[in-house]
Order: sequence, then structure tokens, then C-alpha cells
Amino acid sequence: MTLYKTLNEANAAVVAQIKLARPHLVDVKPAHECIAALREGHALLHAGPPIAWPEMTGPMQGAVLGASLFEGWAKSAAEAEALAAGGQIRFLPCHDNSAVGPMGGITSPHMPVLVVKNSVQGNVAYCNLNEGIGKVMRFGAFEGEVQTRLAWMRDVLGPVLSEALGRLAGGVDLSTLMAQAITMGDEFHQRNIAASALLLRALAPEIAGSGEGLIQQREVLSFLARTEQFFLNVAMAYCKCAMDAGATVEAGSIVTAMTRNGRDFAIRVSGLGKRWFTAPVNTPVGLFFTGYSQDDANPDIGDSAITETLGIGAAAMIAAPGVTRFVGAGGFADALEISEEMREIFIDSNPLLQIPTWDFQAACLGLDVRRVVETGITPLINTGIAHRKAGIGQVGAGTVRAPLGCFEKALEALAEQQGVTA
Amino acid sequence: MTLYKTLNEANAAVVAQIKLARPHLVDVKPAHECIAALREGHALLHAGPPIAWPEMTGPMQGAVLGASLFEGWAKSAAEAEALAAGGQIRFLPCHDNSAVGPMGGITSPHMPVLVVKNSVQGNVAYCNLNEGIGKVMRFGAFEGEVQTRLAWMRDVLGPVLSEALGRLAGGVDLSTLMAQAITMGDEFHQRNIAASALLLRALAPEIAGSGEGLIQQREVLSFLARTEQFFLNVAMAYCKCAMDAGATVEAGSIVTAMTRNGRDFAIRVSGLGKRWFTAPVNTPVGLFFTGYSQDDANPDIGDSAITETLGIGAAAMIAAPGVTRFVGAGGFADALEISEEMREIFIDSNPLLQIPTWDFQAACLGLDVRRVVETGITPLINTGIAHRKAGIGQVGAGTVRAPLGCFEKALEALAEQQGVTA
Repeated sequence: MTLYKTLNEANAAVVAQIKLARPHLVDVKPAHECIAALREGHALLHAGPPIAWPEMTGPMQGAVLGASLFEGWAKSAAEAEALAAGGQIRFLPCHDNSAVGPMGGITSPHMPVLVVKNSVQGNVAYCNLNEGIGKVMRFGAFEGEVQTRLAWMRDVLGPVLSEALGRLAGGVDLSTLMAQAITMGDEFHQRNIAASALLLRALAPEIAGSGEGLIQQREVLSFLARTEQFFLNVAMAYCKCAMDAGATVEAGSIVTAMTRNGRDFAIRVSGLGKRWFTAPVNTPVGLFFTGYSQDDANPDIGDSAITETLGIGAAAMIAAPGVTRFVGAGGFADALEISEEMREIFIDSNPLLQIPTWDFQAACLGLDVRRVVETGITPLINTGIAHRKAGIGQVGAGTVRAPLGCFEKALEALAEQQGVTA
Repeated sequence: MTLYKTLNEANAAVVAQIKLARPHLVDVKPAHECIAALREGHALLHAGPPIAWPEMTGPMQGAVLGASLFEGWAKSAAEAEALAAGGQIRFLPCHDNSAVGPMGGITSPHMPVLVVKNSVQGNVAYCNLNEGIGKVMRFGAFEGEVQTRLAWMRDVLGPVLSEALGRLAGGVDLSTLMAQAITMGDEFHQRNIAASALLLRALAPEIAGSGEGLIQQREVLSFLARTEQFFLNVAMAYCKCAMDAGATVEAGSIVTAMTRNGRDFAIRVSGLGKRWFTAPVNTPVGLFFTGYSQDDANPDIGDSAITETLGIGAAAMIAAPGVTRFVGAGGFADALEISEEMREIFIDSNPLLQIPTWDFQAACLGLDVRRVVETGITPLINTGIAHRKAGIGQVGAGTVRAPLGCFEKALEALAEQQGVTA
């Protein structure tokens, strides 16, 4: 561990490591082949900081039931619930296992995961695969079509993608792809239309004629074509991979993870290792699908705020004016205002992500705990909204603020570490 | 023919027909199967208003040689030149044959053409297929790789796309696709990355497993993946199809076509039938590929200004701030200024094409000859730049103004028609 004279020097080192990172999508594999903790007994990864079954909100509990049915640990939702409530399932944060997961973040041993490898520093990050919208496991639905889709993803989507990626030497360079997609209106959290299309474009010639057969090829291409948020999970693994590279500096006040488990919002900071600093989550406000309203909204949940940690998502709202109406955040001027506000709490900008609609300024990079506390500006997050009850799924999309409390606690810990009394 | 009390009423009727149009990409077929004039003797379509061989500039002459070799009418460039110079080839404007063609616009009987059908009014428009960038026929290159590619497009690309489109009932709804792509940074003239990727996305599941064999499927998917301007030709056929629907009103002062043959810029006007109003073309100014400069630039050429006729291309520069740097037109503020200026000469806006970066304003629609002459603002056009000599190809991209003269002549003709002395 290098010693730095000042927090500024340390932060510059963190940001330099993030800028060096070149995460590539190299494979799709069953989670248990990648993540050792999933190989023993009944274990599931979840979003956010540690949480026990009774404290989980509806969408995460629903996803636990879904994963237990999918793995064959239980034959009914009631059996699965008894298993979870009886302490028969170990719950582990994705973030402690080089992984991230959107919404509930529930990842079970036989679900396929994206394998994203940093070709410079060598670290790897994982994320499960996007299921599409509506009645999906990550939002807490668990029966019927959810199970059919999960089985298809395990048996067809995963193997076909793995084979296609295997034919591309070095996989897909995600930095290049995202550099292009950010000029095409994506902010990589609630809008991934361009990146998903560019990924399909890169993979289609390799998918055509994969050994998996004609029907499977067409099913996979159709799924990728209609799943406009497919790239969200890729972007999350990209951000996790890049932020983990920054975290190796082990100094400074740069936020290396922001995540939520439905109860707590939690952050990690470059100089404070794997400690979580938490505060109660807020509930997102936004637009709801027909038949649902704000009353149905679950509190903020998911590892997907790793995108805002890197400086995309809501921080790059100006790159994606098309998303502002989807999340109920106003028009072009509002998008500009949000990105300008977010720039106040980042210390640098990302040379890989130039935003034409921001007059070719680069995306934000290096979220500084000190700046958040000094300005009182908390990160804004673009997010999907889950129904608060298990079994239903996505009901809308909106925005939510990170709570100030976790940044204040982290700053106090930094002050203590530096021998300064807060 | 309906009688209208005023030009304003007539123009409203023209714009209403354009708004009704729903052009769909339904097929790809050999040109001679679609265009009767190509079935007799040696005939070629070309861009712009009528022009004879001696007056053609280098890129169009080069493309004529290329097409003659491709059709087997000549065994060498010298033989092809003798054929053309000896009056053995009939040259017909694309626009007189329900077609459009970029740059030289040269379309020969056995080249495949896109078939775009208006599902409301029923009219059809054609355009040849985009070859990619660099040494390509439409920019005047004619030997070696140009011939290999043209043969592959005839034998593989055309049949595979035809089969894929045949599987999609009703083809591809281009209005929907373009509505999405304009939110993704395309202006459809010099930037078609999003639309090309979305078209690939729509076709990929149908291409996988076409009867044409695995190698051909992969070749076609790879070609579509790397040809980011593939959609330009689709957009051109779309615009021709929509503007021809407007032209059926046969009244008013709306420009229904703008085109250039390398010598003359020409327009058609809704109330003036198929008459061409011409003025000498300008030469585009822009950025050049390494090794080339402004001195190499051919004067303005091609039917692709049909995009600006509809109100996209340079008129929608604000939708595509990413393109401004490619054509050397400045930054975001410049893109905004261009679109604001262009709005002065259009009478309405296009409800199908909402532009998030213009604070969700719609694209321009209804280019009015009167407004151009009254304001002195001439349409700006985004364009590729061909080398002025035959045989070389594309050397850059830039912008160019339509000359005022053709609009003045059209306005005089309208005044005469209305019994007003100019």
C-alpha cells in the first residue's frame, strides 16, 4: 500500500486506476463456476449491504422464492419461504463476491452471469443477466413465466452467448462500445437502448451459426432485440470492475460503491476498505405503469447505483435527454441542470465518455465523500421501481436521492483515520 | 386535382399527405425487376436532374464505368468509357423512376435495390444499397474491391435481405424505427449509426437461419454491423416515398425534392409538377480523410438531399450533435443554431420525429419556396465529399448550401401560374 501525503493525492491515484481499467465482456457462465461462495449448501447473492430474511422488502423476498424454486431447493413458494425463514439459506452481498445485481440482486448457483474482465489490471466482475421488463425475478416476481424464462436463460441464452463471446478474441471491449453509446442517448442505468443494440450488433455474426441450433439462435437474437435494458447488467459489471480497480489504491475519499438493499443505502470509500457506511434508503419518485401508483413503490433497492458511482446513470442525465421523460425528470434543461449539479460532487471527468449533448464535455468521474458533505448535494439515481409486495414485479421508473447520512458517517471515519477529531 | 384557395391551404394539404405516409421497408430486389426503364438496352439511373456523359463530374463518370463493368457491358474501363461517350448508354434521373441514389446515384439493372412501400397511400420508392465507406462506386471508384463488393451485394446481400424481410409480415415500419433513432443521435444523412443498428436488430433473427447458408448469414450480419451508414439509403427511400405522397396534391409551394448531379442543384415544387428548377451547385466544405484536402472535393452531388427536403439531415443537426464534428460544423451550440435557422424556412413540424436534444421539439416539415426566397436562408445540407476525379472514392464529409437561384426561379414560376407578374 502506497502512502499518500494528502487525500487529494490519494484521490488522484484512485481516479487514475479507474481511468486505466479496460473491462471486456469475455464470457457468460453459471454463477457457481465463478463464485466460490455459491458452491456450498444453499447460498444466494443479494443486492446492497448485508441483510437478513426478515428485514428484506417484498421484491427481494420474492426473488429469493423465485431462486429457490429455480434451483429446486423447494417445490412451492410456501416451502421456499419456510426454507428462508428457517435460516436454511445463506445470504451474501453481491459486492463481497466481485458481483453486482440489479434490484433484489438475487443470484443463485445455476443462473448464468456475465463475466467482465479488466484487461489492464486483471480483476473480474460478475452480474446476472437482464430478464427484460414487467414480471421478472429481479423485481420480485417468482412464478410461471419467471421460472420458464430463468430456465431458458440457463439452458439457451447463457450457452449461446458464451459460445459467441468465445469466438471474439478478447471478448467485447466495453469502453469502446460505451463511448459510442453515450453519444447515442444512453446513460446506462435507465436507458441502454443504444448499447444493447450495439452489443447485439457485435454478437449477431457470432450467434448466427453457433452450435446451439437454429431455433436457439433465433430465440437469442429475438430476446436481445426486444430487451432494451439488456446492457444495464453489462454496464453494472463494467462499473463494478472499474471501481474495484480504483479501490485497490486503498486510500482517499472516493466512493467506490453505492448500493441499496431496500432498507439501507450503503457506500464504500476508497480509503476505508470494505466497511459499509449506511443510512435508511429513500423511496424513488417517478412515473408508474398503468394501474400502479406511488403507494405501490418499494423503497430504493439494488446494486445498480454502481453506475452513478462511476459517474453515469443520473449523473450523465444530459447524455440521455430521452430518459428524462421516462423517469419523470422533466425536459432537456432539467437534464442539463442535473448533470451540472452532479459535477459539483465529482473531482474529475472521464476521458472515455465524451457527451456531445454536454457540448462534448466528458462524463463525471471520482465521486468525493468530502464534496457531498460540504455541498449537501447527494447523488441522484435513476432507477426502476419495484412493487413493494413480492410476486408482482416492476411498476415504474423514477429518480431517488442517496441519503446524506452515509456520506457523513464515512467522512467521520476518514477524519478518525487521519487522526482528526470530527 | 383539388383546387385550393390559397398557397397556404395547398401547402397544408401537402404536409398532411406527408404526415399520413407510412413507408415500410418490404423487400430488396434486382433493380430491373422494379424499374421498367432499366429493362431495355443499356440504361443507368443517375442522381440529380438530367445530365449527359460529357457534363458529368468525375465521381459520376467513375460510377458509370463501374456499373458498365459490373453489368458486363464492357471488359475494361476504356471500353466502358467508349460506350458511354459513344451514346450507347441511356442516362435517366433516379427521381423520374421512383428512385433515389446517393452521390453518383448510378443504379444498373442487376444491382439490388431497397423496396420501400407506403402502407397508407400505396406508392413505392427505391434506392440502391449502401456499400460502406472509402473506395466505393457511389463516390466514383470502379475497379477491384468495388467490383467484388458489387457482385457480393447482388449474389448474397440482396437475396439474404429479401428472404429476411419476407419473413416479417409487412416489412419494417420505418417511421417507428426512425422515431427511435432520432432520439439516439442520428440525423439520417451523415449519421445513421443508431438506425443501422436498429435495422440490424430487427433483421438479425430473420437472417439467422435464412436458406442462404451459414457463411452467407454471417457475412451479411458482419457487413451490416460494420456499415454504419447502411441506413442512409433506407432513409433516402423513406424520404422519397413520403415526399412523393406529398407531391400528389399537385399544388402549393412545398419543395418535394432537392438533388444535385455534380453540376446543377435542382428542386421540384408541389405545385409545379415534375419541372426541375436549377442553379449551379456549390462545393461542400468540411473535414477530409488523411491525404486529401479541399482542392480534391467534387462539387455537390447526389439525391441524398432528399433527407433535407423532408426536414432531417442538416435541418435536424440538433438531433445529432455527434455528427457536427464529423462534418466540421462545430459544437452543440452550432448544431442548435443550424436547426433554429432551418426552422425559419419550414412551415410545420413532423409529429413522428421528436428530438429530445431540441427539448422534445419535432423535426421540421414542409420546406416552403416562399420562405427561402423571403428570408434568403437556403437549406444547409450534410454531405459526403467525393474526390473530383473518377476512380478514387470518398475523401471527406462536410456541409454545403443549396443555391438560392433555383428557389427564385421556382417562385417566379409559381407567380406566373397564379397569374401574378413577378
